Amino acid sequence: MDLQDRLTSGDSRALARFLTLAENNDPEAARIIKELYSRTGNAYVIGVTGPPGAGKSTLTDKLTKKLRQKGKTVGIIAVDPTSPFTGGALLGDRIRMQDLFTDPGVFIRSMGTRGHLGGLSRATQSAVKAMDIFGKDFIFIETVGVGQSEVDIVKTADTVVMVMVPGLGDDIQAIKAGIMEIGDVFAINKSDRDGADKTKIELEMMLDFSEKKDWRPPIHNVVATTDAGVEELLECIFKHRDYLMDSGEFKKRRYRNTREELINLVKERVLELILKDTGREYNIDDLVSRVLSKQIDIYSAAEEVLGKISG
Amino acid sequence: MDLQDRLTSGDSRALARFLTLAENNDPEAARIIKELYSRTGNAYVIGVTGPPGAGKSTLTDKLTKKLRQKGKTVGIIAVDPTSPFTGGALLGDRIRMQDLFTDPGVFIRSMGTRGHLGGLSRATQSAVKAMDIFGKDFIFIETVGVGQSEVDIVKTADTVVMVMVPGLGDDIQAIKAGIMEIGDVFAINKSDRDGADKTKIELEMMLDFSEKKDWRPPIHNVVATTDAGVEELLECIFKHRDYLMDSGEFKKRRYRNTREELINLVKERVLELILKDTGREYNIDDLVSRVLSKQIDIYSAAEEVLGKISG
Repeated sequence: MDLQDRLTSGDSRALARFLTLAENNDPEAARIIKELYSRTGNAYVIGVTGPPGAGKSTLTDKLTKKLRQKGKTVGIIAVDPTSPFTGGALLGDRIRMQDLFTDPGVFIRSMGTRGHLGGLSRATQSAVKAMDIFGKDFIFIETVGVGQSEVDIVKTADTVVMVMVPGLGDDIQAIKAGIMEIGDVFAINKSDRDGADKTKIELEMMLDFSEKKDWRPPIHNVVATTDAGVEELLECIFKHRDYLMDSGEFKKRRYRNTREELINLVKERVLELILKDTGREYNIDDLVSRVLSKQIDIYSAAEEVLGKISG
Repeated sequence: MDLQDRLTSGDSRALARFLTLAENNDPEAARIIKELYSRTGNAYVIGVTGPPGAGKSTLTDKLTKKLRQKGKTVGIIAVDPTSPFTGGALLGDRIRMQDLFTDPGVFIRSMGTRGHLGGLSRATQSAVKAMDIFGKDFIFIETVGVGQSEVDIVKTADTVVMVMVPGLGDDIQAIKAGIMEIGDVFAINKSDRDGADKTKIELEMMLDFSEKKDWRPPIHNVVATTDAGVEELLECIFKHRDYLMDSGEFKKRRYRNTREELINLVKERVLELILKDTGREYNIDDLVSRVLSKQIDIYSAAEEVLGKISG
């Protein structure tokens, strides 16, 4: 059987192989995704983000267990922009629950900065498609929420769970402020620690001050390590899904994300044209030299490139 | 006098106006930059980055004072991806040294997420050009180093000063690990605190394990608030500049950055073509709908857009 057939017949090793191809922008992966495109769009994608040390992996694992108990299959994409490693199931020093690895209904994939082409965001989107085609019911995208690129990645999810933790310093809170707005559901993990109530009050206040929307993100206290509140958090994610479906917001989100992805794909292809097409009448390196020696300004140089690639 | 003449005659209000135009991708700003392009490339650009709370603003201010004492003019671009504000000299709640504001040889500009078009990275590059044309000898780009986008911004500097602080938690250290490699000079600020020696040893170890280069980033202990070690840090920045010049690395860096900028400019212009050109034979929103309804796969859709814009 070829890769495509093995993939649709549920062979996990085929998925692993397919993910590697997809992350590397391999033409074979693109061909398979094209071929099986009608199978995409069925998985529900949950983003899990928050500051480092908030316990995102543990919480994702516990949510996964609950979904498995309900008979759902799960894919986990653990994105770590600070890790050089891509591929395999372990990311850096983050230890995941052992029994997830032996469960054929769960597939875990790590995503670091190296080992794929076209950027982390692109690789994550390809991985989501691969798991979606494979037939996973739920896909988690788990990432540290500290910068714009990570925000961009997690924004492609249907429901974004923002994981907070009591007693973080003000500096970390400042980082969070900028990304608060992408949270659909808030989880205060490690809620058995001092300061959980204070953190909840602060979050409620932030939400009071932010732009009013039809869906006000609920805030849940959880202790991922003891499973406390995890079932309620999952119910809350389902509630958000119901809200998205009933309000038409689901279609709008998927539309926005697909539009964004399409535009990025075109930009990437243009980049390939700029850099790789040696048959064209210009040379990018020659242009750069002319800019540096002030023979041409950079805006005119950009127009020159554009004129050539747009024929 | 028009804006261009006022700018080249050293009118600070003209610079403020020019910066606003440049941040907004205003055609007038592009016209002026084109016109005065031969005046760019003279300022030495210093990036200052590090985790939140490391005291980057204070350190930048103290370095600025030292440069002023040497008769140099300075521009400061304070980038904060978590702040919604752009323009003016104050960023969020960060209080800068009062006497810098009254010094005509210093120009401070804040850069938040809103109030400019084309992304923070693009806006920062335009601001650097504006200050460069204006005639500033040194330009600081100061930003929180927590994500890829901030790393991309600070990478455009000639010398990158990585500001550390003793006693940060392991989680923050993990974030730093991913961006360590862009530091040319390390400063351990607040070195009067416990743990400064330990932090220095840890940094030296990290450098021992990282890829060997001709320039090994030196590590300096400073206390920005009391000025201790700031002069030595500045000397070290000069030493790095000398190294860049003597080794030919300076030209290589500027080449790499100009190439990157040129490619990004082309990508942006392509994006404009995709989104704004209504005279073309396709409709991006229609294509997105066809992708969502699985009439076409997203890769074929991207090819379709590309075919149209490249004639």
